Amino acid sequence: MAIAINKDTKLCMSLAGRPGNFGTRFHNYLYEALDLNFIYKAFTTTDIQAAVGGIRALGIRGCAVSMPFKEACIPFLDELDASAAAIESVNTIVNDDGRLRAYNTDYIAVSNLIEQHQVPRDAVFALRGSGGMAKAVACALRDAGFRNGFIIARNEKAGRALAQMCDYEWKADMSSVSADMLVNVTPIGMAGGPESDELAFSPEEIDGAHTVFDVVALPPETPLIRHARSKDKKVITGAEVIAIQALEQFVLYTGVRPDDELIQQAAEHARG
Amino acid sequence: MAIAINKDTKLCMSLAGRPGNFGTRFHNYLYEALDLNFIYKAFTTTDIQAAVGGIRALGIRGCAVSMPFKEACIPFLDELDASAAAIESVNTIVNDDGRLRAYNTDYIAVSNLIEQHQVPRDAVFALRGSGGMAKAVACALRDAGFRNGFIIARNEKAGRALAQMCDYEWKADMSSVSADMLVNVTPIGMAGGPESDELAFSPEEIDGAHTVFDVVALPPETPLIRHARSKDKKVITGAEVIAIQALEQFVLYTGVRPDDELIQQAAEHARG
Repeated sequence: MAIAINKDTKLCMSLAGRPGNFGTRFHNYLYEALDLNFIYKAFTTTDIQAAVGGIRALGIRGCAVSMPFKEACIPFLDELDASAAAIESVNTIVNDDGRLRAYNTDYIAVSNLIEQHQVPRDAVFALRGSGGMAKAVACALRDAGFRNGFIIARNEKAGRALAQMCDYEWKADMSSVSADMLVNVTPIGMAGGPESDELAFSPEEIDGAHTVFDVVALPPETPLIRHARSKDKKVITGAEVIAIQALEQFVLYTGVRPDDELIQQAAEHARG
Repeated sequence: MAIAINKDTKLCMSLAGRPGNFGTRFHNYLYEALDLNFIYKAFTTTDIQAAVGGIRALGIRGCAVSMPFKEACIPFLDELDASAAAIESVNTIVNDDGRLRAYNTDYIAVSNLIEQHQVPRDAVFALRGSGGMAKAVACALRDAGFRNGFIIARNEKAGRALAQMCDYEWKADMSSVSADMLVNVTPIGMAGGPESDELAFSPEEIDGAHTVFDVVALPPETPLIRHARSKDKKVITGAEVIAIQALEQFVLYTGVRPDDELIQQAAEHARG
């Protein structure tokens, strides 16, 4: 990609414990396609307070926030959007003339996808996971009007806490659960991980559901998604989540909303 | 210029009250020509402490420092190189794993040029100016072994302070001074300024000197330099100073020293 930098170029960035290339490739691709005078670069830090202070002092326009900074950054920000306040977790900082406002576009993306795929609100769901992303998904489901759900987590403390936060039920496993929508928010099925070939839910559990939602974004077609598709289930993929959440960040930073085709191109380019 | 940014790309930057394009164009041109995974961007700030903290926390590799931050940044750095300590003024910060070491490459550039142009050390010089750059030039002359010099400044307080710092003599004007080397460190002759057509020294003063040194970099050939050339004087130009100081920053940031031809190209590109 070709980027001409001058003194008026705005910088957007990411902060992550282990920076990746998705955001850098996604945003820079769109900047170039839309002829916007922005550049995007990934950073890490060992001092989140000074890093956030630097974003403010240097006029860095926006910052994507990943693990382990999503909650740690909050004390140093000026304002929380409802999406971040709902789950007390930030993945996006927007800098307006030194005022730092925080969002959670994972929450926004999941909310949009639930809407877009028209999942019936009376569906009973089972959500595997209890980490930061599980919180975003569970809260988005709660706020979308899903009343009946199970948080499935071997970690009882985290699982119970998340279930309680959203008024769902915690279960250690699926043995006593039957669900219409299966939601995977664990690394099971993730490329390069130790469980890359595994299904987060059993074939029988998939048979009993009408919708399967996998937050794992790499590969775009996880074993779970592939299996669900083969059974003609409605699927929502992690590739959709990551593309929408990145798009919403893009809109917050630039004020420009690219069309769907361009977003698809950018996401494909970013997955490389 | 075309730059491909990925997660391993290093950022270098500048901090100035009024950011310009020279550094951005100079460094990015060289990064591309040498296939180095760096980008360069200009910033300003209203909070120098947080900005320097951000450079450290974000692992920004290097930062050029301009007015009004050259002295203000010092309390927030970890170490001063001799070039910055000599004049208590910083124009370059290098970040080695969170340790910020500061340099003054204006001082280094002037020292190199004096050496390169083989100006005899017994020359009596007259230096017009008393600001931050005048301090860099006067200290470089002092440390190069020039014993006899005059600081010419209408601002008596600043002029006397600089003269005293370097053991030279202060004069309000040139009326009682005769000098072998004339050094202009004022904006006289600067493109776009109110005195862009003026000579910092009179034709008679130029006739009496063997060397004329103008720190003004835009235009590359100031009226003073043009006049001095027409009289077959040895000349040292601000374009040389700015190119060498930027080159020395480049070497400090990247560890790579481009050859003279490439530096010329980059400086010409940067002047646009």
